Order: sequence, then C-alpha cells, then structure tokens
Amino acid sequence: MIIYGRNVIKEALNAKVHLSRVYMVDSKNLSQEMKQLENHIRHLKITIEKVDEKKLDAISHSKDHQGIAAKVKTYNYSDTQEILKRIDHDPFILILDRVQDPHNFGAIIRSAYGSGVDFIIIPERGGCPVTPAVLKTSAGYAFKMPICVEKNLARSVEELKKRGVWVYSAVMDGIPYDKMDLRGPIALIFGNEGDGVRKLLIEKSDGKISIPMARKMDSLNVSVSVAIMAFRVMEARRSANS
Amino acid sequence: MIIYGRNVIKEALNAKVHLSRVYMVDSKNLSQEMKQLENHIRHLKITIEKVDEKKLDAISHSKDHQGIAAKVKTYNYSDTQEILKRIDHDPFILILDRVQDPHNFGAIIRSAYGSGVDFIIIPERGGCPVTPAVLKTSAGYAFKMPICVEKNLARSVEELKKRGVWVYSAVMDGIPYDKMDLRGPIALIFGNEGDGVRKLLIEKSDGKISIPMARKMDSLNVSVSVAIMAFRVMEARRSANS
Repeated sequence: MIIYGRNVIKEALNAKVHLSRVYMVDSKNLSQEMKQLENHIRHLKITIEKVDEKKLDAISHSKDHQGIAAKVKTYNYSDTQEILKRIDHDPFILILDRVQDPHNFGAIIRSAYGSGVDFIIIPERGGCPVTPAVLKTSAGYAFKMPICVEKNLARSVEELKKRGVWVYSAVMDGIPYDKMDLRGPIALIFGNEGDGVRKLLIEKSDGKISIPMARKMDSLNVSVSVAIMAFRVMEARRSANS
Repeated sequence: MIIYGRNVIKEALNAKVHLSRVYMVDSKNLSQEMKQLENHIRHLKITIEKVDEKKLDAISHSKDHQGIAAKVKTYNYSDTQEILKRIDHDPFILILDRVQDPHNFGAIIRSAYGSGVDFIIIPERGGCPVTPAVLKTSAGYAFKMPICVEKNLARSVEELKKRGVWVYSAVMDGIPYDKMDLRGPIALIFGNEGDGVRKLLIEKSDGKISIPMARKMDSLNVSVSVAIMAFRVMEARRSANS
C-alpha cells in the first residue's frame, strides 16, 4: 500500500510502521520541515527515491501527497479482545456501521483521537476500510488510533454488552444526548451516510441517542455527528472523574 | 451563477430564489423525487431544459449535480445591521476569518443551521464566498442561513461588542468551553485552515475559547471545530432558557 502526506509519513514513523521505500519530490526548494523529515528517514536507513511531481501523483494516485509518499506492507488493524484486555478504565468505543466515504472515515478517526475514544470497530464488509485516502484525511492519526475489523457487528454489540458496556445507536429520533448519562463504559454506533444504522443493530443496542437540534433538519454529515457526540461524551466522562 | 444538487434546488425554491432556467438530466427512469421536483418547477412556469449527463457535468462544472442544475442571478447576501434589528433574542453569530475551502464553508453552514446560529459573517476578501460548491455542501441550507459580507472584520467585532455581544476567538490555547459561560449574546470567530484567527481579531475579542481535548493534537478541521462548539453553545443557551 502507498501512503502519502507529511503528517501521515511522520505518524507512520512514530508508530514504527515499516516503510520499505520513500518517494520524495525532487526539488531544490524543500521546506525546513521536509528537509528534517528527509534527514530523519535517511537516518533510519530507509531508501529514498527522488521523483518529479507528476510521478509522485501517479505513485500515490492522488494530488494530495504534499511531496512525499511511502510504500508500506499493509495497515495493521487491532484486535478487539486484546485491546479490551489492555484498557484499565471504562472504555469509550466507536462502531461504524458501513461508513462509505474515506473522507468521513478519516475525519472521524481524527475527532475520535481528540475526544479520547479508545478504539474504533468497523465491519469486514460494507464499509470503507483504512485506505491511503483515509490515512491522509485522518492526518496520520489512524496510526495512533486502534481500528478493529469485526465480521459480525451484531455479535460485537452483544459481546460488549456482556462486558458491561452501554451501547447506543446514533439516530435522528433518539434521546437527546443532554438528557442521557454518558459516563461509564460506552459504545456509540454511527451508520452509513445514506441509510444510517441498520435496524438489527439498533434493536441490539441499549438505546437510541440523538443530537438535539435548534432547527428541523434532515440530518448532519456523519463525521460532524461523531465529532459533536464524541466531545460531548468526553465532557461527561471528565465531569465524572473530577 | 449555476447552482446544482437536488436539495440545493429545493431550498432555493423554498427561499423563493428566482431560477431563470433549470437543467435536468434527460432520463426515462427519473426517481419519484425528481418527478415531483420537475412537476413543481413546471408549475412555477420555469423553463426546463433537458440535457444529457455530460452536458449537465459541463453546465455545473461538477459531477455532483445529482441530475439537476439551475441558473440564478446571484446568491443574496444579507445585511448585518438589518438582521441584528430583526432578531428579538440574544444573537448567536459565527464570524469566519478567511475560511478557504468550499467544503468546509458548506459544512459549517449546515452545522450552523442545526445549532441555531442566527447568521454568519465572512470577509469581503481573503475567504471563500458562497459558490455553487458551498451551496451543494451546505445541502441548500445556505438559502436558509443569512450570510453577511463585511469589509473589515475588526470593525464588525467592535460594533458587535458595542451592542453587548460577547466575542470569542476559537484558538488552540484558549479557555476550554466547559469552563466558560456561553449563554447570552455571543459571536465565535473561527480562522483560516492554515493560520487560524488573525492576531488583530484575537486582540479585539473578549477572550479566547478552545475545545478541551482528551489527547494532544495539532488541531481539528475547522468545520469539525465549528460543529463541536456551536452545538455546545446551543446546549448552554437552552439550559439558560429552561
């Protein structure tokens, strides 16, 4: 897989992801940031290939590479059970039920990191996996945020409930979050951009949660909804600990 | 100006924007939604020109048209003074200091509408104006949300302060919003994607506001930041009124 973007490469290096080769734009006017990055990569004895802008567009299949790309074996997904064992506090989990758009997924990862989400669960089929575009939009935070793939989200919900996690589906007709107790172990399910959370998952959940609105609207973008709710959960958890 | 997208055209019609001509994709398999929209437009005696997909791509300079586009004279900006006179409650205002990206601007308009923002102020220069892409990303809500253009944002801030509005700049090193009183007349300033709110505007503000973070991050996307803060302000205002 080819990953690209300055923050993505930096976070990959921080996370000790093995880069088998780095491609950098061949320019005499590299920024200070890029020069430092180049030195750091050379220091790690990773091969750097200098290419022109067009070649880099072709290598990364994007124009968003910011002058740098790298070859990695694959994105390392995490294991739900392992993470749950490792967490020593009430977990805060996001479940994405078939989010399709890589930009939405990337933005969700970034907000999840900032709001203290412990890990994200995505389904094996029907949703966007971690692609180079997802990594780029996440500003590299996908390398810091554990992402788990599960075959059967309904079963995952059941298992989380058995472990005492409260699971809520984010829908338009749920209970406004300001009327709910968001402290303790919690998982929020967000649905597909078009048709939301699947009925089966809503039924398996402990309840439905909504964003209170000042005016009637069809819906908010899923990445915006996640950000609003995740930071609200963070606030509730903080007030519980203080 | 050419506007495009089903929700955009619908909201333009709701807002009684004059469409001088509508372009619709020439298809025998129009959805129920599109048929209804076509009938509604014919009923209003607006000329409909049927074109093929490619022509519609060319007319709207985009592939996001969803089968419909229309010619309008221009987007009607609102007047700050007029709106302030009309508002009979504590105003909630957003000031965008040179937001560049049309998708960010569109997403901000949508969240602003949902969180009860009264109007948005943008600068005459240096920021993204209301373009067809902004209208599309706003899902048409730009026709419901008053947007005002001001020559000098520093002067706007001063005038708002004179009217008793509390003006806060959204920055990384401000006071976390959960430690602030967000009730009453309020304006929030959000900055450019690259360099944030300009120093002069920060100095003119009554204070600096931040999103509390669970983990250290460089920044959040500006449209995500607006959504998180605007819904937090809405919640504070609601609790004040209940």
